[in-house]
Amino acid sequence: MDLETLNAYHHSYPALLNKTYLNYGGQGPLHQQTWQALIQSDRHIQEQGPFANRVFPWLAQQLQDLRQALADLLNTTPDTIALTDSVTSGCNIVLWGINWQAGDHLLISNCEHPGVVAIAEQLQRRLGVVVDRVNFWPWCEDDVTAIAARLHPRTRLVVISHLLWNTGKLLPLQDIVQLCHQQGIQVLADAAQSVGMVPLNLPALGVDYYAFTGHKWCCGPAGLGGLYIRRDRIETLEPTFVGWRGIHQTRDAQPAGWKEDASRFEVATTAFSLVSALTTAVGVHDQWGSVGDRYRRICYLSQYLWQQLQGIAGLTCLSPVPPPSGLVSFQLANGQHRQLVQDLEAQDILVRELLYPPSVRACVHYFTLPQECDRLVLALKDWLKSHP
Amino acid sequence: MDLETLNAYHHSYPALLNKTYLNYGGQGPLHQQTWQALIQSDRHIQEQGPFANRVFPWLAQQLQDLRQALADLLNTTPDTIALTDSVTSGCNIVLWGINWQAGDHLLISNCEHPGVVAIAEQLQRRLGVVVDRVNFWPWCEDDVTAIAARLHPRTRLVVISHLLWNTGKLLPLQDIVQLCHQQGIQVLADAAQSVGMVPLNLPALGVDYYAFTGHKWCCGPAGLGGLYIRRDRIETLEPTFVGWRGIHQTRDAQPAGWKEDASRFEVATTAFSLVSALTTAVGVHDQWGSVGDRYRRICYLSQYLWQQLQGIAGLTCLSPVPPPSGLVSFQLANGQHRQLVQDLEAQDILVRELLYPPSVRACVHYFTLPQECDRLVLALKDWLKSHP
Repeated sequence: MDLETLNAYHHSYPALLNKTYLNYGGQGPLHQQTWQALIQSDRHIQEQGPFANRVFPWLAQQLQDLRQALADLLNTTPDTIALTDSVTSGCNIVLWGINWQAGDHLLISNCEHPGVVAIAEQLQRRLGVVVDRVNFWPWCEDDVTAIAARLHPRTRLVVISHLLWNTGKLLPLQDIVQLCHQQGIQVLADAAQSVGMVPLNLPALGVDYYAFTGHKWCCGPAGLGGLYIRRDRIETLEPTFVGWRGIHQTRDAQPAGWKEDASRFEVATTAFSLVSALTTAVGVHDQWGSVGDRYRRICYLSQYLWQQLQGIAGLTCLSPVPPPSGLVSFQLANGQHRQLVQDLEAQDILVRELLYPPSVRACVHYFTLPQECDRLVLALKDWLKSHP
Repeated sequence: MDLETLNAYHHSYPALLNKTYLNYGGQGPLHQQTWQALIQSDRHIQEQGPFANRVFPWLAQQLQDLRQALADLLNTTPDTIALTDSVTSGCNIVLWGINWQAGDHLLISNCEHPGVVAIAEQLQRRLGVVVDRVNFWPWCEDDVTAIAARLHPRTRLVVISHLLWNTGKLLPLQDIVQLCHQQGIQVLADAAQSVGMVPLNLPALGVDYYAFTGHKWCCGPAGLGGLYIRRDRIETLEPTFVGWRGIHQTRDAQPAGWKEDASRFEVATTAFSLVSALTTAVGVHDQWGSVGDRYRRICYLSQYLWQQLQGIAGLTCLSPVPPPSGLVSFQLANGQHRQLVQDLEAQDILVRELLYPPSVRACVHYFTLPQECDRLVLALKDWLKSHP
């Protein structure tokens, strides 16, 4: 793509018109086609229904198209995808879907999202599950060995992020899965930061469960995500929150067994008008280039940013190497992370504060413009002059 | 309101412009102001963020405004409202929130939604809960006595619909709650059909849990609802699916206890752009008249329809009395319910088939026009001539 085309594509995300946006790890902006799909869905539903026999097959097709689009993104088949509303919902499905015995162990890292930690702690309180921690921060050179050292004879599940939301490190998931499977332990990966960014082949990774969302790197609407469940785990994972979407029904509307595929873990009515929007969002990216091209561009841009940050006094990147992802986080010697984020936002440069470790995170997507990185670096240097 | 104003109000629901819509119990249409709020929310989020410090307090206010609007509708306080995506989600929160012991009993009626039955049956499979049934169909004259006869010394929870989705009967919830509480049994009401239709005072009803949705009689967007939890039950009900929305956090992002109010049962990112739309939807109705006025109008119209149906050969209403609700269901002697619904839909008259008991349901809202009832009756009579 030439520069003009790149710029035009960038600006087909309306949210990017009035700011330097570097918060893709929090939420991605809507492409204009995605936004159009959202509006078009509501229009269709209101015109045809909202509740009508002619709407149901249309909706079923929308759901199937989305499962297919997400499956393509993960190199899997649609039957392994349950639609959820968030990463955390997907993690809940898995964590409550295991028939824990009191005294069983669960291993999570110290870089997991507080929402996921809250689930683990509630399993501890209600079911007597023992929660062990593996430390990925301070910086860990060998994550597999660190995990191996924390496994217990009664560990049944390991919960880790595929891509750490703070340091931007991509964990060697295939090796971790192999290690765990050798000991009969299942693996749930929090894929909040990897889906939509990293080229993925879930069957090759071997991971049992992979929970993701559409509203971050995929740039879909907030409130729609998915959970990949390895095909042979669909039967063994117990449904917890259930409803009409997950069951077959008899002729007199009695439940008659689970759906055969991962949709058995879906519950009931959700924001159906978002469905075609996420399908559209996932497809839009291919207009720019392949997932491999996009990932390479992300890594190129994050390296570009990371390198510029190296030269700034009073600032240290969390990652000692250019992160293999769009997440570039750094700590300030003065510790004023919140202040910096606020002051940058006042200049319409959007980054976010992270609480653990205390830092500031800037995200680059494949369609980030290099001059956005430059603008951030310039503003940072300026700010540091007045906040030594 | 004069006739012209009534007609104008009716047509401020765009979905009603091209059809005779009688499926409010399935899904309500969006008022143009509600639809506008939906579009406006997305615009605001994209303009300001999507992920930005300046968006968070705005969103928090939107959530608080919605809790307040729903609380007002139920005559309760916002701290007793957890936001959910559907009725079934609310029922899941309650049903999995009790620390069941194997052998405990759960009583549900035979007129509950299959999604709710599926939860009960999964509790039976996973936790050894015994599921008892009370029959509200065939028509039951004294529901309280019927429930009393089915209570067991180990019954811990009764799950019933406040307003039965098939017959349109309004159960004497206050008496049922009183009966159950005398025996230390809690009550969860499925409020899918009552919220947005019936004037409610939940503290006066005394019910422990009340699960509802915004997308039926409230005419909000699909995918947003709520769960009322009596204030003193918030502490005793165990959270199951949890996430960042339900917890406090320490300065280094560790979970630090549940939120004090019912929001502890909320999980994570959901379709936030729907929030102001539901607040708007709930408020729009007051432009027409008070909830009492609206309910009287609904009962007037359903009686009007019910009475016209009495005179039709080959057709029997499920309710032997005019239903105290907007739900008017009937059985055909020829049993061709599905065919009728399809044939009516081909004429843009939207009603739905019910599987238990086999029947067809027509719904009237307060803004239904009497001539819509007439049109249905005329089409029905016509259809019956060719389908004796």
